[in-house]
Amino acid sequence: MPHFLATADADFETRFTALLGMKREDSPDVDAAVAAIIADVRTRGDAAVIALTEKFDRLSLTPETLAFSPAEMEAEIAKVPAAERAALELAAERIRTYHARQMPKAEERWSEPTGAELGWRWTPVSAAGLYVPGGLASYPSSVLMNAIPAKVAGVERLVIACPTPGGAVNPLVLLAARLAGVDTVYRIGGAQAIAALAYGTATITPVDKITGPGNAFVAAAKRRVFGKVGIDMIAGPSEILVIADGTANPDWVAIDLLSQAEHDQSAQALLLTPDAGFAKEVVAALEKRLATLERREIAGASWRDFGTVIVTRDLSEAAALSNRVAPEHLELCVADPEALSAEITHAGAIFLGQWTPEAIGDYVGGPNHVLPTARSARFSSGLSAMDFLKRTTLARMTPEALRAIGPSAEILATSESLQAHGLSVRARLDALNCAEALKEGDA
Amino acid sequence: MPHFLATADADFETRFTALLGMKREDSPDVDAAVAAIIADVRTRGDAAVIALTEKFDRLSLTPETLAFSPAEMEAEIAKVPAAERAALELAAERIRTYHARQMPKAEERWSEPTGAELGWRWTPVSAAGLYVPGGLASYPSSVLMNAIPAKVAGVERLVIACPTPGGAVNPLVLLAARLAGVDTVYRIGGAQAIAALAYGTATITPVDKITGPGNAFVAAAKRRVFGKVGIDMIAGPSEILVIADGTANPDWVAIDLLSQAEHDQSAQALLLTPDAGFAKEVVAALEKRLATLERREIAGASWRDFGTVIVTRDLSEAAALSNRVAPEHLELCVADPEALSAEITHAGAIFLGQWTPEAIGDYVGGPNHVLPTARSARFSSGLSAMDFLKRTTLARMTPEALRAIGPSAEILATSESLQAHGLSVRARLDALNCAEALKEGDA
Repeated sequence: MPHFLATADADFETRFTALLGMKREDSPDVDAAVAAIIADVRTRGDAAVIALTEKFDRLSLTPETLAFSPAEMEAEIAKVPAAERAALELAAERIRTYHARQMPKAEERWSEPTGAELGWRWTPVSAAGLYVPGGLASYPSSVLMNAIPAKVAGVERLVIACPTPGGAVNPLVLLAARLAGVDTVYRIGGAQAIAALAYGTATITPVDKITGPGNAFVAAAKRRVFGKVGIDMIAGPSEILVIADGTANPDWVAIDLLSQAEHDQSAQALLLTPDAGFAKEVVAALEKRLATLERREIAGASWRDFGTVIVTRDLSEAAALSNRVAPEHLELCVADPEALSAEITHAGAIFLGQWTPEAIGDYVGGPNHVLPTARSARFSSGLSAMDFLKRTTLARMTPEALRAIGPSAEILATSESLQAHGLSVRARLDALNCAEALKEGDA
Repeated sequence: MPHFLATADADFETRFTALLGMKREDSPDVDAAVAAIIADVRTRGDAAVIALTEKFDRLSLTPETLAFSPAEMEAEIAKVPAAERAALELAAERIRTYHARQMPKAEERWSEPTGAELGWRWTPVSAAGLYVPGGLASYPSSVLMNAIPAKVAGVERLVIACPTPGGAVNPLVLLAARLAGVDTVYRIGGAQAIAALAYGTATITPVDKITGPGNAFVAAAKRRVFGKVGIDMIAGPSEILVIADGTANPDWVAIDLLSQAEHDQSAQALLLTPDAGFAKEVVAALEKRLATLERREIAGASWRDFGTVIVTRDLSEAAALSNRVAPEHLELCVADPEALSAEITHAGAIFLGQWTPEAIGDYVGGPNHVLPTARSARFSSGLSAMDFLKRTTLARMTPEALRAIGPSAEILATSESLQAHGLSVRARLDALNCAEALKEGDA
């Protein structure tokens, strides 16, 4: 049974706080195993990667077959039906257009009255690696969502690691890689793939940044190589929160909730509405739809364990509660979604109005579907072109500028007992004063 | 003896690669101890924090004295001499002005021909915690560099954790906190402080993001709470790389190199120059200056173990090598720093021309001094106002837009076996088609 709450209930705050703190995922502690795998790859390189792929993916590789050859790519991609290809092309184009708008001005520069110049400059990461899970969760849409922002940012070399258990590969994943401009697709996975991308082997050139979702081994490995390379976020179980009023179609809201629940039994779907009658209609429609779903076991478990319906006093109260959840996906199925949106402070993505099902955002809307999960929208953002850029700050002093602000730097350096810091300014100021004294002497 | 290399040497590539891979810091493995501390704070809250502070900082606190009271702040701040206060105020003002320019437009929104609207919105993190080391490395400048970007971004609640071993506190740190708009300063440190900021206790309200440098315990704790809260980077040993030609003052370059070396014996100072004679002059000047420094033991050890001089064929070769290092700080002490700067792709901060000693950037230049260390400028940026903002993507479909792109979403959802995703689009398209059919029936 999902959780039914009403903000008018006396125990609401207790129950809501418990909901917020609820652990939805039992990550196995694989950290020791992952540490051993990373050490093995760092020591033995290709040999370790090949042995671990044999062990975990039942697949015999050689250094020559670690990556798909161009001919293998061609052969797989040719299997994709025309309709899927067209859909993927539309998605790629829309994602590219959206992310191109995120690009900041390459350089900002301004002068101060003393002639000093300040600014910064954006440059792309040189090489990025995208992890793509194998098997059932091998999603071509995720390839587009990770690879396109990297290419938009200007990443030169872009590779994918995607395990192919028993040799099985999703041709759509390879087509998505092609459409996004990926250079190489390695048929490796798990912690060994993350280690190979971070540290390199004889065959695999290391990258500077690794993004993409994965299982507990992949997540633990990403956490471990963080610092050696950049990583995106550590993805947790995802969630949708729908705020709806009586103007919404209860059946549509029900399917939207299920579209999150069907991902994973630890996914969470929440409905917040001031209309108790509407809430009942949604629950009834959801149960009816649920029975028809192929993934009804997964979606049913998610809805039973984590599904939540909260009847609020009004829409503003719903917005305030939503901000405490900081949901990954937030649908505003209300008469005036813009007004309600103005009250939202924390959410990964907002879907405005009931003509915008969350699934649009997963595939073809344009915005990224890699979004902060597990309440991390409080402090982080979805994937973007910015994740593949970095900023270099710029400063250029003139003698006049140094004279104006240098003495303060010297005082602060001295107060921090960093003598050479102070001297580096003092030596220059002394030279300036000297030059001036000489000039005055001449006059 | 520092490392002397020349790109013309036969073994250069081998030696340079070894330099790049050189481990400069032996972080003790404190992860198990840190895990226990975090678990203790999560279980016992204030009692754990107080017990650990007693143990590590020899300081007896109560829940009431965990934070400095306003009167205590006043009393400490009153001790700051006028010159230091004025210098800190100048620094704060310049840092604020620089970071204010980093603020992106709060909202971007655009329409497509179908009427669909896309965009995104930036909002601040609600609460942030800054870690400030105690003792010798308790730098007021770091308080400004962490706290001001947070306030510029609009963070509402800003707290500091700063251990005060034996009760000792640096009044300048408290003044910097005041100038930057920090709400509360807790006299706690180590992993227990990070745990308290991330999970909260009865007295300490948890925050959403934690930034700031710290020792191995702090770094390990930040790595562990990453995901529960946001963190900045895990700082490693820092470095300066100076590219200089014969037009530069060798003494100034020498002091600049030492200003990095005096930080820490694992800091690294590198000089790249095409002028072998100039290199010799710098080394001679450096040895002379080194003998005069209060921190000559630290700076001397850093220079001896990690100091590096590379004679290159020309400045472009120096720039290319610098890009492989991806230094935290890069000084271009050359006749035409702008031209050389155009060849730089990876660096935390660039200091243009020899009137711009790195120390200016540490205190009063305006740009942040929290910069990517240990080659991480390949994939990350210095701290900025953006680190305290997050982006919410926005999408609003119209019926026409859904008709245009919905079928592609449905196809991709089906190909990924996510039936409810497809249904959430299909239900709406069916309703549209139905409405149309009815209308045609009327006509």
